[in-house]
Amino acid sequence: MSITTPAGFVAAGLSSGIKASGALDLALLATDDGRPVPTAATFTTNLAAAAPVRVSRDHLAASHGRAAAVVVNSGNANAATGAQGRQAAERMCELTALGLGIDPQHVLVCSTGLIGYQLPTEPLTSGIPALVAARSGTEHAAEEAATGILTTDSGRKEALVRGSGFAVAGMAKGAGMLAPDMATMLAFLTTDAGIESAALADLLRIAVRDSFNTLTVDGCTSTNDTVVLLASGRAGTADPNVVVDAVTEVCADLALQMAQDAEGASRVAHVRVTGARSDGEAHQAARKVAGSLLVKCSLNGEDPYWGRVASDLGSAGVDFDMDRLTIAYGGVEVCRQGLAVPFDEEAVAAHLAGSMVDLHCELSLGDGNGMAMTVDLGHGYIDENRTTS
Amino acid sequence: MSITTPAGFVAAGLSSGIKASGALDLALLATDDGRPVPTAATFTTNLAAAAPVRVSRDHLAASHGRAAAVVVNSGNANAATGAQGRQAAERMCELTALGLGIDPQHVLVCSTGLIGYQLPTEPLTSGIPALVAARSGTEHAAEEAATGILTTDSGRKEALVRGSGFAVAGMAKGAGMLAPDMATMLAFLTTDAGIESAALADLLRIAVRDSFNTLTVDGCTSTNDTVVLLASGRAGTADPNVVVDAVTEVCADLALQMAQDAEGASRVAHVRVTGARSDGEAHQAARKVAGSLLVKCSLNGEDPYWGRVASDLGSAGVDFDMDRLTIAYGGVEVCRQGLAVPFDEEAVAAHLAGSMVDLHCELSLGDGNGMAMTVDLGHGYIDENRTTS
Repeated sequence: MSITTPAGFVAAGLSSGIKASGALDLALLATDDGRPVPTAATFTTNLAAAAPVRVSRDHLAASHGRAAAVVVNSGNANAATGAQGRQAAERMCELTALGLGIDPQHVLVCSTGLIGYQLPTEPLTSGIPALVAARSGTEHAAEEAATGILTTDSGRKEALVRGSGFAVAGMAKGAGMLAPDMATMLAFLTTDAGIESAALADLLRIAVRDSFNTLTVDGCTSTNDTVVLLASGRAGTADPNVVVDAVTEVCADLALQMAQDAEGASRVAHVRVTGARSDGEAHQAARKVAGSLLVKCSLNGEDPYWGRVASDLGSAGVDFDMDRLTIAYGGVEVCRQGLAVPFDEEAVAAHLAGSMVDLHCELSLGDGNGMAMTVDLGHGYIDENRTTS
Repeated sequence: MSITTPAGFVAAGLSSGIKASGALDLALLATDDGRPVPTAATFTTNLAAAAPVRVSRDHLAASHGRAAAVVVNSGNANAATGAQGRQAAERMCELTALGLGIDPQHVLVCSTGLIGYQLPTEPLTSGIPALVAARSGTEHAAEEAATGILTTDSGRKEALVRGSGFAVAGMAKGAGMLAPDMATMLAFLTTDAGIESAALADLLRIAVRDSFNTLTVDGCTSTNDTVVLLASGRAGTADPNVVVDAVTEVCADLALQMAQDAEGASRVAHVRVTGARSDGEAHQAARKVAGSLLVKCSLNGEDPYWGRVASDLGSAGVDFDMDRLTIAYGGVEVCRQGLAVPFDEEAVAAHLAGSMVDLHCELSLGDGNGMAMTVDLGHGYIDENRTTS
């Protein structure tokens, strides 16, 4: 499975010297004939959005949702870099366009890494032409692209879903805390389904909401978060209502891989809230619990301390009645009608010791359902993030 | 300095057996003649509020803001305990009133400890009469009360401010994460200034807003958070506009002691935001930065990575312009107009290695100022909170 599996795409990745380690730090995804195709993207809403986000937004607006290539660097976020950073992002597009013989407006650009450092130009000037020259539709080239976008990730994140007559593929990076406001999340998706730009944008918005955004706390995003979807149309026109499911499935797969690779985490937890007044309230409550430091510590310690969960639900800003609350770990109720109940401690201990935890909160107030994904908080996260060196 | 320094108060603390360790777990604060005096309180807004919070709220409403005693237990939060918990909280008031020969309505009650466990009645039945009998105005009795309210705190938290002709004293507990939604925060204040109930309530609201609430993330509170202020009037009628400053100073002193004692923390940081569109936006932005896991990890690692600060400001939901942003650690600018600037690295390193960090963010958009207090996030916090055992 690779991002070049859907027909009509090529990829490449190489080491340009941005990363001192010599690891791959540039990636290219492009149409195989250099022609722009319908393209949708969702960008960070952070007001400190990085230069590449601003450039990509402008290019996609000017092209009315069409692109032929995406160029990515890792190892430097090109954020908090002012006018010079903007020039560097534009230069990345120009160099890519020059190599492909296309209009720079049809190139999108992404960066990920540390904030507040100017992007060095020398590696780009020599690296991007070589990157473009190396492009191919092989599995190997796609793997190098999927590697070139990584930072602290422990490995590539790729996904593929085959629909009836079309395919959707994706690659992503993101290994910080789960909330996109904590670490850059980038995802690049391809499909050979034929869908026009407007429908593609609607479809991507839904897929991101139901996948990556279940990882979001407070709806905040980092300076660089970007998800891009290109549709080559090589498989012929497709029904967006069918394709949306495949795109959501690819995004959810990538989101889970990110959670599993979160810095210092040993397990992923799905916090499900049911019986809220509305889906919106259920999501809000689930995000509150998922973002709770104490809950995340309990997950690290494999401790079913549901009192913390109840306290987070009670302060989530949603309708709540302690006397109606039921909480279960892995389907085993530990709290019913707001009170502790005897439970199978061995079964719960075994569930909490696993790599996937299900934490279910039933509010018994209405029909609203919501979910948020989180990970435990352990020493590893602190060790990874206490210094930038 | 002690909570019995203002004229008209007695205190006591003892070990009743609620804590298996045998540590002090009951505390009493009362007027020395058993007469109710003007009393104000602020309680958690958590919808999962504990039984003692509900009982105290009811008593204070019924008495129109007058109380003669506060009884406190540590080692059990009496939260998520339903009707049985409510009965236990009422029982604590009744036993105290019986000993003092007063109306149970004039007794407030607080609990702190683990959520979801029924409060054992035997220790209360024997302990509270002994507690009442032990009350006195001595420094020693006040110290035992200040000890009896503690849980994971490393030591007593007391403060005293002498005004012109009156005194304000306080004792507090709270050693979890700084945000009151993370750990119970209790504070008990006394003054001999003469102030009526309504003015006392206004005064306490202001003092709490400008002290304890600078520790709050998202305005959330735990199931048990309570601040109580009793005014004996023994020093004669006082101007609330003068007393408010003394009460705020006592609260701020206690808040700082809580921050310094936060679990696993090695330093306290004051995040100051100036130049926001409004004070409200400045506070919101400061709280966002203060609550950021990555910023807290950087504080642990003594790393001036201001890029994370900028990212948090950009996603704080307030007006923000990266090109106008200045960030300084200990008065040394590391970012100006949104860009990295050369700075005295030794001076910043020395400041970050200290126990009090000043992180100043100037938004250059208006006149709004705000502050939030936080601590670094280290291994100790996780070790303390990963299990309840």
